[in-house]
Amino acid sequence: MQSPAQPRTLARHLADHVGDQVRLAGWVHRRRRLAALTFLVVRDRSGLAQVVVRDEDVRRQLDGLGEESTIEVRGTVTSADQAPGGVEVIDAVIEELGAPAQTPVVALWRPGLDATLPILLDHAATTWRHPRRQAVWQLAAASMRGFRDTLHRAHYTEIATPKVVAAATESGASVFELDWFGRPAYLAQSPQFYKQTMVGVFERVFDVGPVFRAEPHGTARHLAQYTSLDAELGFVHDHRDVLAALRDCLAGMLEAIGSDAEQAVELLGTRVPEVPAQIPTIHFREALRLVGAPDDEPDLAPEHERALGGWALAEHGSDFLAVEGYPAAKRAFYTHPQPDDPRWTNSFDLLFRGLELVSGGQRLHRYDDYIRALELRGESLAPYETYLDVFRRGIPPHGGFAVGLERWTAQLVGAANIREVTLFPRDLHRLTP
Amino acid sequence: MQSPAQPRTLARHLADHVGDQVRLAGWVHRRRRLAALTFLVVRDRSGLAQVVVRDEDVRRQLDGLGEESTIEVRGTVTSADQAPGGVEVIDAVIEELGAPAQTPVVALWRPGLDATLPILLDHAATTWRHPRRQAVWQLAAASMRGFRDTLHRAHYTEIATPKVVAAATESGASVFELDWFGRPAYLAQSPQFYKQTMVGVFERVFDVGPVFRAEPHGTARHLAQYTSLDAELGFVHDHRDVLAALRDCLAGMLEAIGSDAEQAVELLGTRVPEVPAQIPTIHFREALRLVGAPDDEPDLAPEHERALGGWALAEHGSDFLAVEGYPAAKRAFYTHPQPDDPRWTNSFDLLFRGLELVSGGQRLHRYDDYIRALELRGESLAPYETYLDVFRRGIPPHGGFAVGLERWTAQLVGAANIREVTLFPRDLHRLTP
Repeated sequence: MQSPAQPRTLARHLADHVGDQVRLAGWVHRRRRLAALTFLVVRDRSGLAQVVVRDEDVRRQLDGLGEESTIEVRGTVTSADQAPGGVEVIDAVIEELGAPAQTPVVALWRPGLDATLPILLDHAATTWRHPRRQAVWQLAAASMRGFRDTLHRAHYTEIATPKVVAAATESGASVFELDWFGRPAYLAQSPQFYKQTMVGVFERVFDVGPVFRAEPHGTARHLAQYTSLDAELGFVHDHRDVLAALRDCLAGMLEAIGSDAEQAVELLGTRVPEVPAQIPTIHFREALRLVGAPDDEPDLAPEHERALGGWALAEHGSDFLAVEGYPAAKRAFYTHPQPDDPRWTNSFDLLFRGLELVSGGQRLHRYDDYIRALELRGESLAPYETYLDVFRRGIPPHGGFAVGLERWTAQLVGAANIREVTLFPRDLHRLTP
Repeated sequence: MQSPAQPRTLARHLADHVGDQVRLAGWVHRRRRLAALTFLVVRDRSGLAQVVVRDEDVRRQLDGLGEESTIEVRGTVTSADQAPGGVEVIDAVIEELGAPAQTPVVALWRPGLDATLPILLDHAATTWRHPRRQAVWQLAAASMRGFRDTLHRAHYTEIATPKVVAAATESGASVFELDWFGRPAYLAQSPQFYKQTMVGVFERVFDVGPVFRAEPHGTARHLAQYTSLDAELGFVHDHRDVLAALRDCLAGMLEAIGSDAEQAVELLGTRVPEVPAQIPTIHFREALRLVGAPDDEPDLAPEHERALGGWALAEHGSDFLAVEGYPAAKRAFYTHPQPDDPRWTNSFDLLFRGLELVSGGQRLHRYDDYIRALELRGESLAPYETYLDVFRRGIPPHGGFAVGLERWTAQLVGAANIREVTLFPRDLHRLTP
């Protein structure tokens, strides 16, 4: 780049510089050669800028610069009612910042993105550049910020947890094994143990990071690595306190989307939900009754969840519904029973538009209760030794939840497959890019 | 807990409630039984509260409640000049929230924490509760927030990157192998490839997350998993733009420490550095000359770094010093050469108080340059195929850096071993807790 002295102007700010000589930098988004001029659209992180080129030398230069080539443009900003944003750049001089780019596999300049999922994913480095794809990720990024900011305001402490562990804490079936200096070790399926431990230190903690599930099936809603937004809080009365914390997180995530990603919401036409001050909550028994399922069903099927989502919208005008009291048999052993009837638990699932988005609840906090719970399930205590010891050290009544970032984003934008909203998905078949 | 109706009062807010009946909740931090009364200190996330118990039944109850048991205390706040914070709680009724805790391996109520490193780490669940340990982590947590907030304000986009990859991007030697549905795969040593790729999408990106190095040696400054604060930015002129971005991040991290962790800084007596508006920068050649090393030394030894740290402080009054221009042979193949002399590179290390804290620099952005760089090193192109293809797709001139969170915190508080500032360290020997 010739002269770093001249500050760069972003596409979005061009309208503030009518009459000025500016320096744009970005990608060749589109070229259209007409008889007497070439329209060049430059894309940068802020949006698109139109450049009108009449000089024959510059037009020939542009002919050799394929879409996605990176360039600098020096020119003069002028008003142009017919141009996007009401301005365009004229008398342009163009400098190439690298070699001309190869032609993208999909036309990024078309408003729609017409590509199969394998194309989207195999060529992620390019396809994420499409404004609609960028917008999707901006919702995800804003959600992470909103989650953290909400918890920071509520005096939660961020923690960083090990992703390699000596034993599987959740279920042993779907865990990745690795070679740890000659010993077997496992990728962490969740930060569950660590966040419970750290409740003993900071009372309220959160962790945003990757978790790993060796799911051997390739469904549209499972990934082998996903981003888990985890929170855990101590000194709760029961799972309703946990649900209230989750409610505030969701509201904060949507607030951040509103402030960081307004353009993205508009471009995608995303229907941003309202989070009720109190999320409508029904008991699992009642949920079964509502969907007409037998009262000994141990879990909700996807079609049940969809029906309940419709019910919550019709009955409460809410995109969110909490189902509490799941049967003990279907929840992790650390789940706190419902005090008045231990067939049920102080746990919940949160449905968002009829899809399970979050699992949470109150956990056991007494050592003896853990021993009893594991014995009742006929599980060996040995793999949980380190975990269990923590509960002899003074852990208050507590609970927590985990939001899957990708599932949240997918449901928010109505993506058919969770891979569409994941930067570089990992699954049974996919280990690149 | 009997009545959730009465709101909880935090220890730090007791002074606002003189004369009131309050509900405290927390840990038994310390008990001192005197002839006519028992002093109870309750610890919660905000600090310590003194409770004076004269009732014989309650005193007997406390005798059975070891330190670290979780309790609720209902009592009346009264002024007491001799008490910490000028208030204490009297006429207390105590409710146990779990079974009495086992006696901690270290006395958490003592101002100092006198324990060997193995004790600290083996009993992390308890030892992190010591106020000095808590304070150390609060500096780390605030630093993460400050890093992200700084970049968010500068319009960087947060990304989430795969932690399992098909090929090692840095050096093949120190990589963990795992079984990915029957295929070999590797834990990511850095998000380098992904952040460069995403510069092609968002121009400016950051990623805070775990990275993995199979370091077979147990030094005081290496971990097998650490938290990497990664940033990458496009459309730079050279590495100096990258260094300026790093400078702002460090300033933001320290600002967040000032606002989130003031108490922690005070308790630890941490000397919080000033970040100069421009970090003093010297060329690698000049650094060798300053420390009296031969001018063909390829790298700086730890004692050289210490000497340079002393020089920066004496000469520039700065705890930070950037050394730029490292010899190409000692930097990763993706490092951009110094345009006027390709023996050197457009890269830098940032020393903080004489210790290398950050590596960064400008990267290659042209496909052909990558091919040449790998060929020059005699490296096969095959494992880099996906990586290299990205540079045919239009990647602007760019660069970035990575701050090791644990190394930063350790140097900030003067910890002798990086494991002291890591919640649950992982290394050659340590896979639990």
